[in-house]
Amino acid sequence: MIRAGIVGGTGYTGVELLRLLAGHPEVSLDVITSRSEEGREVADLFPNLRGHVDLRFSQPEIGRLCECETVFFATPNGTAMTMVPQLISAGVRVIDLAADFRLKDPETWEQWYGIPHACPDYLDQAVYGLPETNRDAIRAAQLIANPGCYPTAVQLGFLPLVEAQVVDMDGLIADAKSGVSGAGRKAATGTLLCEASENFNAYAVPGHRHLPEIRQGLELAATRPVGLTFVPHLTPMIRGIHATLYARLSDPDRDLQALYEARYSNEYFVDILPAGSHPETRSVRGSNHCRIAVHQPQPGGVAVVLSVIDNLVKGAAGQAVQNMNIMQGFNESLGLADIALIP
Amino acid sequence: MIRAGIVGGTGYTGVELLRLLAGHPEVSLDVITSRSEEGREVADLFPNLRGHVDLRFSQPEIGRLCECETVFFATPNGTAMTMVPQLISAGVRVIDLAADFRLKDPETWEQWYGIPHACPDYLDQAVYGLPETNRDAIRAAQLIANPGCYPTAVQLGFLPLVEAQVVDMDGLIADAKSGVSGAGRKAATGTLLCEASENFNAYAVPGHRHLPEIRQGLELAATRPVGLTFVPHLTPMIRGIHATLYARLSDPDRDLQALYEARYSNEYFVDILPAGSHPETRSVRGSNHCRIAVHQPQPGGVAVVLSVIDNLVKGAAGQAVQNMNIMQGFNESLGLADIALIP
Amino acid sequence: MIRAGIVGGTGYTGVELLRLLAGHPEVSLDVITSRSEEGREVADLFPNLRGHVDLRFSQPEIGRLCECETVFFATPNGTAMTMVPQLISAGVRVIDLAADFRLKDPETWEQWYGIPHACPDYLDQAVYGLPETNRDAIRAAQLIANPGCYPTAVQLGFLPLVEAQVVDMDGLIADAKSGVSGAGRKAATGTLLCEASENFNAYAVPGHRHLPEIRQGLELAATRPVGLTFVPHLTPMIRGIHATLYARLSDPDRDLQALYEARYSNEYFVDILPAGSHPETRSVRGSNHCRIAVHQPQPGGVAVVLSVIDNLVKGAAGQAVQNMNIMQGFNESLGLADIALIP
Amino acid sequence: MIRAGIVGGTGYTGVELLRLLAGHPEVSLDVITSRSEEGREVADLFPNLRGHVDLRFSQPEIGRLCECETVFFATPNGTAMTMVPQLISAGVRVIDLAADFRLKDPETWEQWYGIPHACPDYLDQAVYGLPETNRDAIRAAQLIANPGCYPTAVQLGFLPLVEAQVVDMDGLIADAKSGVSGAGRKAATGTLLCEASENFNAYAVPGHRHLPEIRQGLELAATRPVGLTFVPHLTPMIRGIHATLYARLSDPDRDLQALYEARYSNEYFVDILPAGSHPETRSVRGSNHCRIAVHQPQPGGVAVVLSVIDNLVKGAAGQAVQNMNIMQGFNESLGLADIALIP
Repeated sequence: MIRAGIVGGTGYTGVELLRLLAGHPEVSLDVITSRSEEGREVADLFPNLRGHVDLRFSQPEIGRLCECETVFFATPNGTAMTMVPQLISAGVRVIDLAADFRLKDPETWEQWYGIPHACPDYLDQAVYGLPETNRDAIRAAQLIANPGCYPTAVQLGFLPLVEAQVVDMDGLIADAKSGVSGAGRKAATGTLLCEASENFNAYAVPGHRHLPEIRQGLELAATRPVGLTFVPHLTPMIRGIHATLYARLSDPDRDLQALYEARYSNEYFVDILPAGSHPETRSVRGSNHCRIAVHQPQPGGVAVVLSVIDNLVKGAAGQAVQNMNIMQGFNESLGLADIALIP
Repeated sequence: MIRAGIVGGTGYTGVELLRLLAGHPEVSLDVITSRSEEGREVADLFPNLRGHVDLRFSQPEIGRLCECETVFFATPNGTAMTMVPQLISAGVRVIDLAADFRLKDPETWEQWYGIPHACPDYLDQAVYGLPETNRDAIRAAQLIANPGCYPTAVQLGFLPLVEAQVVDMDGLIADAKSGVSGAGRKAATGTLLCEASENFNAYAVPGHRHLPEIRQGLELAATRPVGLTFVPHLTPMIRGIHATLYARLSDPDRDLQALYEARYSNEYFVDILPAGSHPETRSVRGSNHCRIAVHQPQPGGVAVVLSVIDNLVKGAAGQAVQNMNIMQGFNESLGLADIALIP
Repeated sequence: MIRAGIVGGTGYTGVELLRLLAGHPEVSLDVITSRSEEGREVADLFPNLRGHVDLRFSQPEIGRLCECETVFFATPNGTAMTMVPQLISAGVRVIDLAADFRLKDPETWEQWYGIPHACPDYLDQAVYGLPETNRDAIRAAQLIANPGCYPTAVQLGFLPLVEAQVVDMDGLIADAKSGVSGAGRKAATGTLLCEASENFNAYAVPGHRHLPEIRQGLELAATRPVGLTFVPHLTPMIRGIHATLYARLSDPDRDLQALYEARYSNEYFVDILPAGSHPETRSVRGSNHCRIAVHQPQPGGVAVVLSVIDNLVKGAAGQAVQNMNIMQGFNESLGLADIALIP
Repeated sequence: MIRAGIVGGTGYTGVELLRLLAGHPEVSLDVITSRSEEGREVADLFPNLRGHVDLRFSQPEIGRLCECETVFFATPNGTAMTMVPQLISAGVRVIDLAADFRLKDPETWEQWYGIPHACPDYLDQAVYGLPETNRDAIRAAQLIANPGCYPTAVQLGFLPLVEAQVVDMDGLIADAKSGVSGAGRKAATGTLLCEASENFNAYAVPGHRHLPEIRQGLELAATRPVGLTFVPHLTPMIRGIHATLYARLSDPDRDLQALYEARYSNEYFVDILPAGSHPETRSVRGSNHCRIAVHQPQPGGVAVVLSVIDNLVKGAAGQAVQNMNIMQGFNESLGLADIALIP
């Protein structure tokens, strides 16, 4: 039984962490912080937690957080980096669900996030928490940069092609669609029901912060530069990401289905669907699975990969718990057994 | 570990039973039948169950079902009653999620369901499976009539008022709103996304089959006849029932909040919210809880009760598992620990 | 051709007014104000208006507004009352879509709206703009208090019963359900897609501002005090109100269908459906109609009235245009010919 | 004033035609057929049409249809081709909203639609009804093949690039997302609200019937073969198509914004948004416009085109009315002035 804390518990990744940790048999949730909701019962803000979580939100205090074995940051970008050095010094394990430690190059980070990095010296020791590529490093890590939601769906979808070097690496295309919860719980006109339902649109086509994160991961896998066009879209639903990936095959005779099944044969949370399938986002709603199908519509030509996750689970809180399980030596799927809700 | 079977596993109550039983630590799911999907893998029809359920749909055969300790019927009305006598004779416990055994009077049943009852002799021994009123009888029962979704939400909401006899029993009003999953998974124009989303309407105002079921339950609690107007509505979402209940108070000074808290103080699955609350259906999405708030907007006057459930869980499959737990002597909440998904 | 202005054009009633007035053959839209969006092209904020509206938002200036024949206020409550006296003096006709002039009693207004009324002397001359009860007064009015959305649906539904005095006037119940656009376009957590979709809840059960407005209207029609319980709910869709109304019949033999058809036989925008019908909110989406069905589920007993409108049209902007048409002597349905979008 | 008929009026393109034609000042709607709903009032099936359409559905009879000047087919694929020869002989103008006359090659048609073509001799005289490429031919045509919904959005988006030959024509990618109304009004499990809402998935990745239609159009424009990967997706909303198009630029210095604005400068129904825009499907909900934005996210590289339509209007019934207007010499936008509903 380990003691865990959550910094910034009022957003959607925060409440999802609460849901998962409240049911985790090896975790005692000790602290959950929020500046704006200090003193309020967590279950008053999120009534689904009535009877499951007895905590109140408290001010973030380094002292109390240092009593935890693991601290999760479910804060906006730029917050974790101001507190991480102290927690690391105190021996606490940290899992940051925001972007502060995802990019290895502090200049690239500053360019995309608009502020200087507060502790660039920690970028090297931060481990990118995608277990399917980094499990051993995660096991030994003290600081985890939990991947973004789009980067999780897109990288898991592209990895087999990129690692096997069977596609034209200069012209990868990722057309990704996200449910609205990806935009968070803050009040904003654009994500009101009346603006975002019965509507579909692309956004950030000139450049989205997840582009350098995805490219960094794919380039590591490819061991060479990668040309990527990434277009995110907002789709009128709460949870789910569907990434549709396109790559020109350099080896058109390769059996893609076998390639994908082999790559993920030991990955509990990556499910390669039978040939000809079309994964539905709802098949992973509330679950930590990524489901993938790979197609080759015309002879030779283009590989089309369909990759779905729940952005709040495998794309955020679930993957964070998976990383914690690995770091702590627990069974990797502990506390992550939920079956997706259909319908 | 008991062996369980499901007859009629392709509808929404069927897949919800599968989800709950697949995670139940004391149940081995042995049989799931479907005439139309015979031979097909369950996880092919419901991909959320991939990795959790290995069964294939099979033809319903009494012989195989008799090897189960408990058989659930998730069939259309009128099916269970043709098979129940054989199963009962074989000592199998039966939980019928349809309406076949809910009404005590076979003539009333025939009037509302349009066909003669196939085994009226079994109506007496059937126990109405609302644990909050019938726990002892359920424990001893072999045949459970699992309550309807509206009847669960409406009865749990009205019971404290009716049992305490503090309202005008001749003019009860239940204005109920249901998500579309209440209409089932069969192909039908009226429940297409393009017909039922961005839309709201009442239906069956002249008379709905759940009216006699609710009235029967309330009259038992009141030990007198009850006048009830019940108007169901379809609301554009998948899961959830919200019952708004109105009753004229005959004792306007009664502390309704205390009355409700006392009535349900020992009921794990009924949660009385603090005074002034408005329960949200999403606070019980995927969970077996019923959350209730009670209001008295004007001095004296009218009690307004707000009662929410997930129609597929407390209103169907979850309550069925709760009943099975009681019958088997398991902890009543075993396998029902899921926290509602928010958002 | 009259010149019209809109004060406060960035909310949902504002953009709906723009949509309707842009297509109105007798209106030239001259001014649209917004403090926050000053200088921005209207069609940039609302791209559906590209090619239809060339205006930019401007600061509200009394001088420019006084050049209009009719000025609409689509502002928050409490704004119109600070500008109306000047406009009235200048001979401008004013239609206020907010609540500033709806209640005749300034003390009741202050009690429900929380601030003193800025120009209580104008409450008497303000005409409540429900054409189906007040057409002659509207024709002669200079200042119109455009009714609220719930009050429109509820009053139109109750009026025939109340005017004919065939129900128990002490126990009226209005259970109303609104789409989320009723909450407006301002950024707020509670109306985010991720909070309000896949969810249903009541709100303001202890008391909603539309309660005194509805009661005032019904008491005028009844020429006596009225006891009303009003419970509003939020339903997960953009547009539409469905009011389900309950009243105990004092004359159970009255032919309610005939009563309703007679009452509204000359009302173009009130459509009494055939007996046994259940109106759908989508049947009026984007249209200025109110559709009503009346039921009497049990012999004697209770009348159940179902009344649907589009809250942004007959419940706001459409009714405002209808009032303008009456005031100007235009055909009452001019510019209001749109057929509801189905699907 | 011309007399018009609709064959097959019970589907979504049928009711949308009804909505548009009921408000068209130069059309008298004389006949609407349906085998299944014969004798039923149209406004009973579609209550939005109450007060606007007085017709009843009738059996399709060639005699009555021949009295019309224009007959629209809103039937399933394969129906129009059995009746068109007789209507053409009688001098009736025919606009087929289904696919019967869209492909020029009868063998390709048979391959994709699974049955032999009933009147291949008419394929040559059929004019593909995309006014933005074929206006002159449409003006002179007697038989119009109204384009499919995806083909309209994708072709209008690609045409400027393809006609100007500034992209690699062998690797075009069209990632398209459609609202559920594209699947029609027939009862089907897959498009139930409970299956299709809160969900997103691709379908028909191995091959969709609109692929050959799009390719035919693009090859005509390019005057050479074209390599196209087309992936359709279902998005949880009623109306709208968003096509996201990718093409490698062969001339990276070309000013794409200027190219698009020039190409469509005279097209009333094609709206090129300012540089940097992201069109929303709701901005065309209920309207006949196509809105397009063109991006070039990285230097050189890839053009990303975003093209939105309402699949039932510009993608079906609205384009059919536009074609009728052209054929009859009416103003092209007559009866098509509706402004999209926002919100």
